[in-house]
Amino acid sequence: MAASQPLYSQLYDVLAERIRSGDWEEGKQLPSEKALVAEFGTSRGPVRQALAKLRTEGLVVGGRGAPPRVQRAVRSQSFDTFISFTEWVEELGRTPGAKVIELTQRLADERLARDLDIAVESPVVAVVRLRLVDGEPVMFERSVYVIDAGRHLLRVDLEAESIYQTLRNQGIFPTRAHNVIDAVGAGEIEARWLEVKPGSPLLRVRRTTLDQHGTVLDIADNRYLPNKANFAVDNSTLNPTPLTRIAVDDAGSGG
Amino acid sequence: MAASQPLYSQLYDVLAERIRSGDWEEGKQLPSEKALVAEFGTSRGPVRQALAKLRTEGLVVGGRGAPPRVQRAVRSQSFDTFISFTEWVEELGRTPGAKVIELTQRLADERLARDLDIAVESPVVAVVRLRLVDGEPVMFERSVYVIDAGRHLLRVDLEAESIYQTLRNQGIFPTRAHNVIDAVGAGEIEARWLEVKPGSPLLRVRRTTLDQHGTVLDIADNRYLPNKANFAVDNSTLNPTPLTRIAVDDAGSGG
Repeated sequence: MAASQPLYSQLYDVLAERIRSGDWEEGKQLPSEKALVAEFGTSRGPVRQALAKLRTEGLVVGGRGAPPRVQRAVRSQSFDTFISFTEWVEELGRTPGAKVIELTQRLADERLARDLDIAVESPVVAVVRLRLVDGEPVMFERSVYVIDAGRHLLRVDLEAESIYQTLRNQGIFPTRAHNVIDAVGAGEIEARWLEVKPGSPLLRVRRTTLDQHGTVLDIADNRYLPNKANFAVDNSTLNPTPLTRIAVDDAGSGG
Repeated sequence: MAASQPLYSQLYDVLAERIRSGDWEEGKQLPSEKALVAEFGTSRGPVRQALAKLRTEGLVVGGRGAPPRVQRAVRSQSFDTFISFTEWVEELGRTPGAKVIELTQRLADERLARDLDIAVESPVVAVVRLRLVDGEPVMFERSVYVIDAGRHLLRVDLEAESIYQTLRNQGIFPTRAHNVIDAVGAGEIEARWLEVKPGSPLLRVRRTTLDQHGTVLDIADNRYLPNKANFAVDNSTLNPTPLTRIAVDDAGSGG
């Protein structure tokens, strides 16, 4: 504790650290004000102020009468874990898998050229994979890479290797991404692979990924079984919401 | 320009300001290095460094040979606009609307009591509304308010008034929220109101909103027509992603 801080703020730091460290788990009832007064040997005022700050910061929730409890804190996710299915699943302690359905080198049509910011008829590499968790289908992935990145993908086993790890090994670093999240009915192809009926609701994430030079690396259209993945975000009046809700009159249903 | 900054950094500030101010619009081609050298009377080095920083920061994208262009910047959204359908639609310059389908005061069952952090059989106010944009159905909203907030909703015209604006007028300030975004098939009821077939894909946002004291104010289940709304998020290796992808083996399909 820094002696120059007000007492309540020092108390806040100690309690917040117990929550952040996991020493106090989510859902745990906090000790009563009386118990905290006894533990820290302070008066009731600073304890109350510290608890109020924990509430405002969202680390503690509750109590109409009932003692306050440790609040579920949605952690933010690292960029690499967010964009890589393999790294995400491994972090969850599960086993990621992939089945390569199609791997093609072809020439960009106008739309693809625009999306990838390359010239029309530039070569690209398209990858279609079914992604698995513990052997079960979870996501249907369609991505298209610029040739500088894609050429490396033709040489590796895309059922065993993470694409982004492969690219990093080649000095190509996915660095930024723009993601659009919505819902879409399953098309015939992904319906078969995901083992659902055509038209079934899927959670779709369309992403443009840029490398360390700000150059577009790939575009992807990933469709998740909705009971296998979702997205959580916390927001507050203190911080602008990092997620933007966009109205689109005809967002289209993708391909 | 602050004279103590390195030259390239001063240049960066000037160019970034042109982009942020909208003076240079999205998609605009940047002047050539040569033109920038001429405009600022510097050598080529600082211009190149400034351009490199604009790319890293995501304000500029491109150029395999082609001149770099101003990049679409996803703005973050204010908390109020994010959680309020009315305020969101008004910001878009469209006309929000609501049809009240059900408004009920009842007693919380166990599950609702847990979600709202209140005692079982506490009174709550449940609101079911169809939300419209320019008179067309866009979202089906189910929300349940604790009685301290809900009592105010019984007295106002929920087809004309924003619920959150009504609550703010009563000194109740929605301050934080936890949001989970996924996809779900339309149930019979919302299918009829949204004019789609049962089972059609909808974009679902489930939200818990807390007031300025950190107390739960309401829980909501909002289902959007997927071609009418989506969510965009930008992320990078420099910043942790504020959105967490969660794997759930049985997230359920909601009610």
